[in-house]
Parts: sequence; C-alpha cells; structure tokens
Amino acid sequence: MKHQNMAMLCDFYEFTMSNGYFKNGFYKRTVYFDVFFRSVPDNGGFAIAAGLEQLIDYIKELRFEDADIDYLRSKGIFDEDFLAYLKNFRFTGDIFAVPEGTPVFPNEPILTVRAPAIEAQLIETFVLLTINHQSLIATKANRIVRAAQGKAVLEFGSRRAQGASGAVDGARAAYIGGCAGTACTLTDQLYGVPAGGTMAHAWVQMFDSELEAFRTYCELYPKNPTLLVDTYDTLRSGIPNAIEVFREKNIRECAIRLDSGDISYLSKKARKMLDDAGLTDCKITVSNALDEKLIRDLMMQGAKIDTFGVGERLITSSSAPVFGGVYKLVAVEKRNGEIEPKIKVSENTAKITNPHFKKVYRYFDNESGKALADELCVWDETVDDTKPHTIFDPNATWKTKTLINFTAKELLVPVFKNGECVYDCPSIQEIQAYCAGQLDCLWDEVKRFENPHNYYVDLSEQIYQIKSILLSLHKM
Amino acid sequence: MKHQNMAMLCDFYEFTMSNGYFKNGFYKRTVYFDVFFRSVPDNGGFAIAAGLEQLIDYIKELRFEDADIDYLRSKGIFDEDFLAYLKNFRFTGDIFAVPEGTPVFPNEPILTVRAPAIEAQLIETFVLLTINHQSLIATKANRIVRAAQGKAVLEFGSRRAQGASGAVDGARAAYIGGCAGTACTLTDQLYGVPAGGTMAHAWVQMFDSELEAFRTYCELYPKNPTLLVDTYDTLRSGIPNAIEVFREKNIRECAIRLDSGDISYLSKKARKMLDDAGLTDCKITVSNALDEKLIRDLMMQGAKIDTFGVGERLITSSSAPVFGGVYKLVAVEKRNGEIEPKIKVSENTAKITNPHFKKVYRYFDNESGKALADELCVWDETVDDTKPHTIFDPNATWKTKTLINFTAKELLVPVFKNGECVYDCPSIQEIQAYCAGQLDCLWDEVKRFENPHNYYVDLSEQIYQIKSILLSLHKM
Repeated sequence: MKHQNMAMLCDFYEFTMSNGYFKNGFYKRTVYFDVFFRSVPDNGGFAIAAGLEQLIDYIKELRFEDADIDYLRSKGIFDEDFLAYLKNFRFTGDIFAVPEGTPVFPNEPILTVRAPAIEAQLIETFVLLTINHQSLIATKANRIVRAAQGKAVLEFGSRRAQGASGAVDGARAAYIGGCAGTACTLTDQLYGVPAGGTMAHAWVQMFDSELEAFRTYCELYPKNPTLLVDTYDTLRSGIPNAIEVFREKNIRECAIRLDSGDISYLSKKARKMLDDAGLTDCKITVSNALDEKLIRDLMMQGAKIDTFGVGERLITSSSAPVFGGVYKLVAVEKRNGEIEPKIKVSENTAKITNPHFKKVYRYFDNESGKALADELCVWDETVDDTKPHTIFDPNATWKTKTLINFTAKELLVPVFKNGECVYDCPSIQEIQAYCAGQLDCLWDEVKRFENPHNYYVDLSEQIYQIKSILLSLHKM
Repeated sequence: MKHQNMAMLCDFYEFTMSNGYFKNGFYKRTVYFDVFFRSVPDNGGFAIAAGLEQLIDYIKELRFEDADIDYLRSKGIFDEDFLAYLKNFRFTGDIFAVPEGTPVFPNEPILTVRAPAIEAQLIETFVLLTINHQSLIATKANRIVRAAQGKAVLEFGSRRAQGASGAVDGARAAYIGGCAGTACTLTDQLYGVPAGGTMAHAWVQMFDSELEAFRTYCELYPKNPTLLVDTYDTLRSGIPNAIEVFREKNIRECAIRLDSGDISYLSKKARKMLDDAGLTDCKITVSNALDEKLIRDLMMQGAKIDTFGVGERLITSSSAPVFGGVYKLVAVEKRNGEIEPKIKVSENTAKITNPHFKKVYRYFDNESGKALADELCVWDETVDDTKPHTIFDPNATWKTKTLINFTAKELLVPVFKNGECVYDCPSIQEIQAYCAGQLDCLWDEVKRFENPHNYYVDLSEQIYQIKSILLSLHKM
C-alpha cells in the first residue's frame, strides 16, 4: 500500500543474478527493460494502464535495511562486497511510462527502465506486480462500467480480494476504470476514492423486526438512506417495510438494495411498488455476483436499476484474473555508450520481443479525434506529423497505410530521471477523467466486448530492420 | 503483510452500522458471527483453511489512529461520542477457529467471533479478506501438488499476483497447501517459507554468448546450479551449452529449466541428451502457464520432469479466483445473557444460514483413521464417542448413519479470549505437516479432481430443530 519499503518483495533470482552482475562488473552497465503484455484479458480490444503511482512510491522508498542484509547473508551464497553495495543501494536510473488511465495495446512498451543492471533487475518483480495488478482491475472495471451504460458502478469486493493490497489498490484501479466509488474505507483515506456504504444483513437481524431496523437507520441517516431489503422476504417484507419507513419519515431521496434473488424480476417489481407508493425518486441498487455479462443482460431485459454494486468478479477480475505483463531486456549499453539492441527468441513466436530502446507514438486523426494506430520507433527517431507518414503491419509487411492530417503523440513520459522523480502524479479524479477522455478517442469497434477490432501496433522501419537482423543472427 | 495496523481496511458500512449500534446501545450486546463458505473452488471436494496467523496479527494491532478518526469525522455523519469510543477501541471478544491447514467443507463454521456488536462488525472485512485469500491459495496449491504426484512444486507467481499481499501472503498459503518453496524473498524473510531462484532470460542476454552466461553462473554458484536453457533455442543451443558447462566444471548435481515450447516433448529430449552426456543426476525443472490440469497431463504423458515451477495460475487461483467465505450473524445475547439464535433467510435457499453459537465435531473412524463426517452442534452439546452416535443428512433427514468405534474431535479451537490471544501459532513447517497429515485422513474419493464425493456436514438434532423453528417463523 502506501509508503512501505517493499525492497524484499523481489524474486530471489534477482538477488542471485545481481550478485553475479556485481562480481563481474556488469552492475555498472546501463541496460534497458520494457514492460509490455501479449494479450488483453477477457479477449478485450484494449487494456488500461494503472499502478504507476504505487510504483513511484516503491522506487522512492527503495532501500535495504540491516535486517534485509542479514537475511541475505544467512543464505550463504552472497558476496560480502555485494551485501555492502546493497546497504547503500538506491535507484539511480530513468523510468518512462504511459500515464495511468491510458488505453494500451499488446506488444507495446507501457514502461521502460534505463538503469545500471542490478538496479533494473532488482525492481523487476515489484514493477510487474503493481502494473499487472492495477492494469488488470482498471481494465475489468471499465468493461463493467461500459456494460452499465451510464448507470453507476460501485466497487464492493474487499472481502473477496486476494489480500489486503488486492482490496485497497484494486479499488483504486477500479475507480480509474470508471467506477463511481468503493466500499473500501482505506482506499478513500489513502487515495481519495469516494467510499460509501450503508448496512449489511446483520443490521436488520440485530433488531426485533425489519421495520424497526429500517426505522432506526433512517433516523440516524435521514439524508439519502439505502435500505437492504432482502434479509427475510424482498417483496412481502423488505420493500413494504422500506416504503412504510420512507413515508413515515417523509424521505424522498433514498434507495433500496437488492442482494439476492432474480435481480431483473425483483427490480421491476420493486420499481412498481415504489412508484405506486409515490417514491419515484427512490433509487434501486443491486448486487450479487454481478459482472459485465450479467449487467449487459439485465440492461437488455429492461431491469429497473440505478446503481450496480460489483464485488468479487471485479476485484479479482474473476473471468480473467491475470494480466500478463512481462519485463524484458531490450538493450544494453556498451562501454563506449553505444546502445546495443537485444532480443529474446523463443519457440513460441509470440514470446519473441521487440528489441531496442524505443519510443511509442500514438497517431490521432485530426478530423474525428480518434486514435488510428501506435508505432514503436527507435528512441531518437521522430515522426513529423505535418507530412504524410506511412506505417506497415510488421506481421504482413505489404499491408501499409499512409496517415495524413494527423497528430502524433508520444505515449511514454519521463517519470524518473537519474533516480529523481520528475513526474507529478495527477489526483485520482484527474486520472479517471483522463482515462474517460482517452477512451473517447477509441473507435467503438475496439471497445466491442466480443471479437473487437485489432488496433494497430506497428513497428517503424528501423525497429523492423533491427528485429529482422537479430532474428537472423539467432536462426532457428 | 506483517504487523501493520489495518483497522481502516474496512467496508464503509461497518462504520455506519457501528455508529448506529453505538447510538442505540447495541454496542454492548454480545453477538456471534460465523465464517463459512458455500462451495469449494474448482468444484473440489474440500478446501484448506488458511490465513489465521495474519488475522491474529491484525487483531493484535487493531486500533484507530488520530488520522483515522479525523478522516471519519470529515464525512460529517458520525457521532462525536462514537468517534471518541473508536479512539480507545480494542478488540475484547473471543475468536474460535480451525487451525490453519485443516481441510474444511461447505456450510460449516471455520471461524466464530463472539464479541460486542461493534467489535464483531468492524473486523468483518479483514477477517473475510484474509481467510478467503489464503484459503483460496492453499486449496489451489494442494490441487497442483496432488497432480504432481510427489514431484516438487515451487511457487513462482509474485509478478502476476493481485497486489503485494497477494504475492507475499499467497506464497505463504501455497506452502501450507504443499508447495516445496517460493520465489518470493519476502515470504521467506517474514514467514520462513524457503525461497530460491537462479536466473532469468535477462541473465543470458546480458552476455555475449549463452555459453559464457552459463559458465559465469556455474563459477558463481557451483553448488547445484540451475541453468535456464530456452533463451535462444532449447535443443540446439540451450541444452548443449548447459551440458558443456556442467562437464567442463565437473558439476554433477545440477538442473536445467525449460520455460517455453512443448514441455512434454522437450523434457523427454532433454532427459535423453543429459543422460547420454552422463548427467543422470541433472534435474529438469519446468515452468510456463502450468496448473493442475496441465501437470496431470504431463505426468500421464511420461514427461521427464523433476520440479514444477507454477506462477500465475497458482498465485491467482486463475481457474477459480474467489473463495466465497461469508460472515453471518448467527446469535445475539439478550440482556439476561441468554443466547438467541438468528437466521438469515433468502430466496436463494443456499444462502440460508445455520443459526446459533455452534461447535463443530469431526468424526474419525478408529480403524482406518479416516474422517467420516462433520456435525454442527450447539456450543454446549457434547458427543460421547464411546457410544454409538447417529447422524442424519439435514437435506434428506431420512438418510441416517450410526457411527461406532470412532473418535470425535472438535475443530474450532480458542484463538482469542476476552481480547487476549490464547493461541500459539505453529511454525509454517508445522502447519504444512499438519495439513498433509489431515489430508491423509480424507478418503481418496473426496480428493478426486472431477466430481468428488460429497463429504457429510450434518446438523445435530438440536441445531436442526432451531433452524426449522426459525425458518417457520419467517415463512416464505
């Protein structure tokens, strides 16, 4: 979560490798690692990058305490000089990343690290963990929010999250993806995501009657109370009791929550009962194992729902609970400062990496404002968007497209420079708004749930040539 | 993770309800909550309870800081007297729980809280979060370990975990479920789960040649080195280079790791190449999107594998990423000290709770040592296992079974008594061994992957009657 030193949350092999780099002098070599992913969860058309702020906190706090050094020493395999080096360890490199809330696509760098080998290696696990986790949840949340077609979606899943940070940071990411709020108090306190909540079934059970439970609640919280109406019998007890109390207290701004049974049927019945009682402003909130598929169905069936509370299926992204971001070496600086591109070949073609220190351009059509394609270029290439620019599909090089009347925008921005943070983290509200704005730049076809259009992520001629040469050197 | 005050990791409605309990005097009432779950992930026959030690840490640290109170005050809905009460808040109640590593079944309490209403309510979110998360991962890990049929399984998933505690506590739970170790250094440092690791592809790429990378590594770590052989070409480059270095350095105790390609085919080829080179003691470790299904297939195909490294599909339990533990009010103490059982009725029959303050017996057959059934009894009932004892199926009451020559063991043990921890947490190695021993007491039919036998969780006559009466009072 916030401001803890997570230096030891690190795969053990980072230490065995770093000890090796230290002993053979590689630790002074500057290396380049890219974070990218190979496919979008749920077969979606895009993902949403998130988790950068927590990564920044991690890098700022990063140091090894005496207890950490002692622990490593106890393993009996690390050089004392290496342990002494760790004692003064700080991150001194550069990090470039896409801002949180940016829609991103497979096989493009969403974060690049340029740092001495040991530093770049030791941060790998946490970089991936944070970016993978929050990008997963932001992406899932946005699917659910899109399915709700403008109705509010609240994140309710802490109790089913995979651990404490799964809950707290997950709720943060859900807000980036478009949720209106969370039930998680700590996420509000730490990050400013609005938290809310009213009552559990236990509240109703604690009283001698449901009516008394509702009455007491409305006396305590007369301003926009939400009553949970399914503890005993939704239609015969819960809703009639809620109506009785709302009328008795003359409360017009209010809500009921349905947490079991057939949500579509019950919401329609509830709407009619509320309307017949003159409570036309009473909102209906529903929860119970919701996700984007069920919400889409409920909307299609004309369910009378104002707010969706989504729990386990959002906070774990249960239908696709893994975001497969990887951290791959793409270049090494030679002693003379020259950047030598590196590749990882694989018998799985999809696992072959895009070599070199790169920049990523996103091209926007000036007329529609829509994003047309992304292009990976060598770090010192520039694209002049005042002139026509031809891109090509790296998997089918005869497929080309010439862009005219477009704007080129660089996606990766500097976050750390020589170990200093040079990035001002936006507020969580700014990130949410930025995300929504960027999603407006995607064609609907990319946002389709089923079989979305494949957005183009192309390679510049230079990157393509470098990759081809490196591949031919490692002839399979 | 360890020893942080997680008081604010709490659903917001716990505060709105608690404020209400405070104002109407309920906060002095002793209430009883059960934690139980309704179905086993992956349609398994049993789950493994885990997460208790982290819950104990949480309860011990639980308090509200001034900043927390200020945050709550800023919401403008909480009574100043309630906020003053929170300032001195400590948990003063009792907690009973099954020890970590215990196999558990749907609809039986795995944890019971007896405490004043506010205290019981405010811990709900964290209790569920911790128990749900770690029970999920321990259960999944054990499935994978069973599929590996005695071959070692290592937990490798930190980078794909859902947040920092997902990684760290998840690796702990995986060890309880039977994993031999983890890649997560912090889990070793905090909990004593053995961590290990050797090299990533980046190590190989850093050198001018794979041979040089392997040679350097074996010079650094001549004791049982593992070489990753799939950076360029497993059969034509990786394995031949590994063999060359192992021979050159005269290393017999060693291993190679395969991380891509067809694992079954490559492992057989690798085994032959290693054996032909006289490296019969060289082990083969594999990784790459493994889970219990793939491992079972690999074993059936006679793949030559000594160790499985399992990442994302274990650390997120990706095929079933939610453990659905719930926290339900089961009784309230009246002013005269009498315990009044409570029920939650629901239109979903499966959501109806088992009322009352209960104990859980597990009955073991004295001859085979196997567990025969569990029975939920009222807290002050006793079962005399020197006499025949008849149990019945609560869903089909004519189905009865009379137990003879059996031992009755109570599953829930005292953990907190009047706010004091009265439980000595076993070491993680003791928990793992206890879990393995308890699993030996389950029939193979319960451990089957597909369509396992439904283990009996019965209700005592008393509990059954109480439930029937309460249900008839809330006639649907």
